[in-house]
Amino acid sequence: MASALRRLAKCSDSARLLSFAGCSRGRRGHFARPCTVTAQRNFSSASAMTVDLDGSTGIAVMKLHSPPVNTLSLDFLTEIAISLEKLEMNKGCRGVVVTSALPKIFSAGLDILELYGRSPERCGEFWRAVQEMWLKFYSSRLVTIAAINGSSPAGGCLLSMTCDYRIMADNPRYGIGLNETQLGIVAPFWFKDTMVNTVGHRTAEIALQLGLLYSPQDALKIGMVDELVPEEKLVSTATEAMARWFAIPDHARQITKSAMRKPTIDKLLSARETDIGNFVSFITKDSIQKSLKVYLENLRKKKA
Amino acid sequence: MASALRRLAKCSDSARLLSFAGCSRGRRGHFARPCTVTAQRNFSSASAMTVDLDGSTGIAVMKLHSPPVNTLSLDFLTEIAISLEKLEMNKGCRGVVVTSALPKIFSAGLDILELYGRSPERCGEFWRAVQEMWLKFYSSRLVTIAAINGSSPAGGCLLSMTCDYRIMADNPRYGIGLNETQLGIVAPFWFKDTMVNTVGHRTAEIALQLGLLYSPQDALKIGMVDELVPEEKLVSTATEAMARWFAIPDHARQITKSAMRKPTIDKLLSARETDIGNFVSFITKDSIQKSLKVYLENLRKKKA
Amino acid sequence: MASALRRLAKCSDSARLLSFAGCSRGRRGHFARPCTVTAQRNFSSASAMTVDLDGSTGIAVMKLHSPPVNTLSLDFLTEIAISLEKLEMNKGCRGVVVTSALPKIFSAGLDILELYGRSPERCGEFWRAVQEMWLKFYSSRLVTIAAINGSSPAGGCLLSMTCDYRIMADNPRYGIGLNETQLGIVAPFWFKDTMVNTVGHRTAEIALQLGLLYSPQDALKIGMVDELVPEEKLVSTATEAMARWFAIPDHARQITKSAMRKPTIDKLLSARETDIGNFVSFITKDSIQKSLKVYLENLRKKKA
Repeated sequence: MASALRRLAKCSDSARLLSFAGCSRGRRGHFARPCTVTAQRNFSSASAMTVDLDGSTGIAVMKLHSPPVNTLSLDFLTEIAISLEKLEMNKGCRGVVVTSALPKIFSAGLDILELYGRSPERCGEFWRAVQEMWLKFYSSRLVTIAAINGSSPAGGCLLSMTCDYRIMADNPRYGIGLNETQLGIVAPFWFKDTMVNTVGHRTAEIALQLGLLYSPQDALKIGMVDELVPEEKLVSTATEAMARWFAIPDHARQITKSAMRKPTIDKLLSARETDIGNFVSFITKDSIQKSLKVYLENLRKKKA
Repeated sequence: MASALRRLAKCSDSARLLSFAGCSRGRRGHFARPCTVTAQRNFSSASAMTVDLDGSTGIAVMKLHSPPVNTLSLDFLTEIAISLEKLEMNKGCRGVVVTSALPKIFSAGLDILELYGRSPERCGEFWRAVQEMWLKFYSSRLVTIAAINGSSPAGGCLLSMTCDYRIMADNPRYGIGLNETQLGIVAPFWFKDTMVNTVGHRTAEIALQLGLLYSPQDALKIGMVDELVPEEKLVSTATEAMARWFAIPDHARQITKSAMRKPTIDKLLSARETDIGNFVSFITKDSIQKSLKVYLENLRKKKA
Repeated sequence: MASALRRLAKCSDSARLLSFAGCSRGRRGHFARPCTVTAQRNFSSASAMTVDLDGSTGIAVMKLHSPPVNTLSLDFLTEIAISLEKLEMNKGCRGVVVTSALPKIFSAGLDILELYGRSPERCGEFWRAVQEMWLKFYSSRLVTIAAINGSSPAGGCLLSMTCDYRIMADNPRYGIGLNETQLGIVAPFWFKDTMVNTVGHRTAEIALQLGLLYSPQDALKIGMVDELVPEEKLVSTATEAMARWFAIPDHARQITKSAMRKPTIDKLLSARETDIGNFVSFITKDSIQKSLKVYLENLRKKKA
């Protein structure tokens, strides 16, 4: 635990200090007004994101906006999943670009405050929402492109990896990876499966055991992201990439996507309750709760 | 569909225009005489290929010769499978080099004319022949080397990928890949499995969804082919490669090959009829037939 | 067989001539005194290895010392497995570095003398010990790092691949790989699975069929080893690497390691007796025994 914190403390980027951290509650309201005003249909209202669908192109842009670092709380996960579901049901939508409205951070991952000091019931409810978000994105009929404009540890990395294509801002200060072990917790089997599907067995083995956060250059090298561009070109590059995916008839692309991902999805679907049970019994252990307490206290000291 | 055609229309190589296309019927007879005369035993007679077995080396060369672009019709698939079976039964044969007798094209893949306007029975018969070709090659006791001397889309790419080793002519005009989705159709699970076994899960996911055709250089980079050589050195390089495989005792190599491929083969064997049923019900759909019609009409216009 | 021997005969390094060979019996006693004297606890006594645990760091160094080439006999395999088990039970131990006390060779692999002219019972007992060594290492709770300071064919490569991390001496004379087919024998499914988990399906397919031995540079390129260093820096580099693994809380790392490897381990556990039966019936075949005889005779001639 201590050494993981030392490692995190070395990061110069304050966003990375908050990797896989919470502490965002009570601040959200301040920034929660939609930060973009567009002529297109906007699904969000006083929410932690904006979703803009351009009816002429069929491309929606989902901008995560839960300050300070887009941690994935129960509410936020639910909102993300519902927003995707709405887009899925909208016949005018063929693809979605997921990005962050906040500087330097794509998403800091699961909200530690949802894991610390909570009842088993609440932990179970939270975990079901994490599963739901993953299931919805990994099996989406839409073309999903992550425009990763900041650090993307743990759950943020998972969200990116559910997408069909990942473009990251070429800023060496940003990191991406499933760094759960650094906090003394463990990525569940379906995080692991998604990682193996993305970077292969051996790279996943070493990355997951060491909880590695990769620089954009290294992430590109191992195939965790597909393309790097200067940050200001992220959205335009995502739009251009979308055009290549739209060139393919939707039904053929969707059947192919399902053929690739269905075995992984079915594995979670057939073990969903067991997975929730495992998570709850792990996270509510005294030793794990103690680790999380120390971690949160250290975070608070750093911020003070 | 339209955009897929636009993409194809950009190719400067006429062979690529015919990627995954048919239109070869009625012409075959013209070129079907064996184009090489050799002192070795020749299995073919007035067929769409020549098979020359060199008794002194144990190497057979199978040259596909079904003008204009080696599309895989029911007859041609059957002939290919029977030719391989004959070689398998010949104790003097230890390896086979598969190549094309036609310029610029290895094989344009499955014959679209077998898919358009046919009865469900005929479609099923055709699909069984595609399965049979794959099963025979992927499980062959022989060392199989593809000498890819031209473009190799869709079924042509599949045939290459069943081989133990792939050498491609280093000509940037050639393309190779499973580009089915570009035509609005879908590679079945065993095409996909072969692709995953060759290039890994993530590369297969993106290549199959986008129906990508790779240049030889890019195909080498992702591991879809193993070696590039100037076109005139293809056969000699294949012979040299064969020597490396022949240096290994056959029984040890064969057991090892089977251990690697049996799970993938068993998957199709245990779902063969279901797979035929799925294919027939997909390909005979009105919407798919309409797509194929448009595609064929466009091909004819281009050729006119 | 002959060609495999020719290939081996080309190697300039005498250690490689003995790749996957035996002939070490009767010599062991000579070198079997522990070659290092340390202040730390030493598990070994007049054995074929030394195991030094540094209580202050929690790092054990296991030095294989069964001259001339660390072939894995029944006794040696048993000793290796028991030594690891003792370390596992020692709460002061968190990681182990496996290396060789002999020059130029990490381990020459399974002892051919255990395979030639033995009763089926003895062959079965031997194979169970090979399984046991693999099972213990592949599932170890400890951080396992292979410091590969010499050639590492066949069983030597397998032992390396069970580790969490592999550092190899950057000496082009050394080779590493599962070269079983070169001797006319076959790596069993769990050797193959370990290889696929390490270098991926396609690379494993070609490497196993051709029984390839890779130079350190090539082994790094395909991911069979993780890092190359000058030979004199092997142990210090291994210690530094260990520190990165120790930075992760043990329980999180161990659960993650198990999640990655359990399916592969369970596959052998559920087919252990069948696997022994298959091995015994294969290795006791007349044709295989004859091959091994020729191989051993050639080895003896070379040494004379």
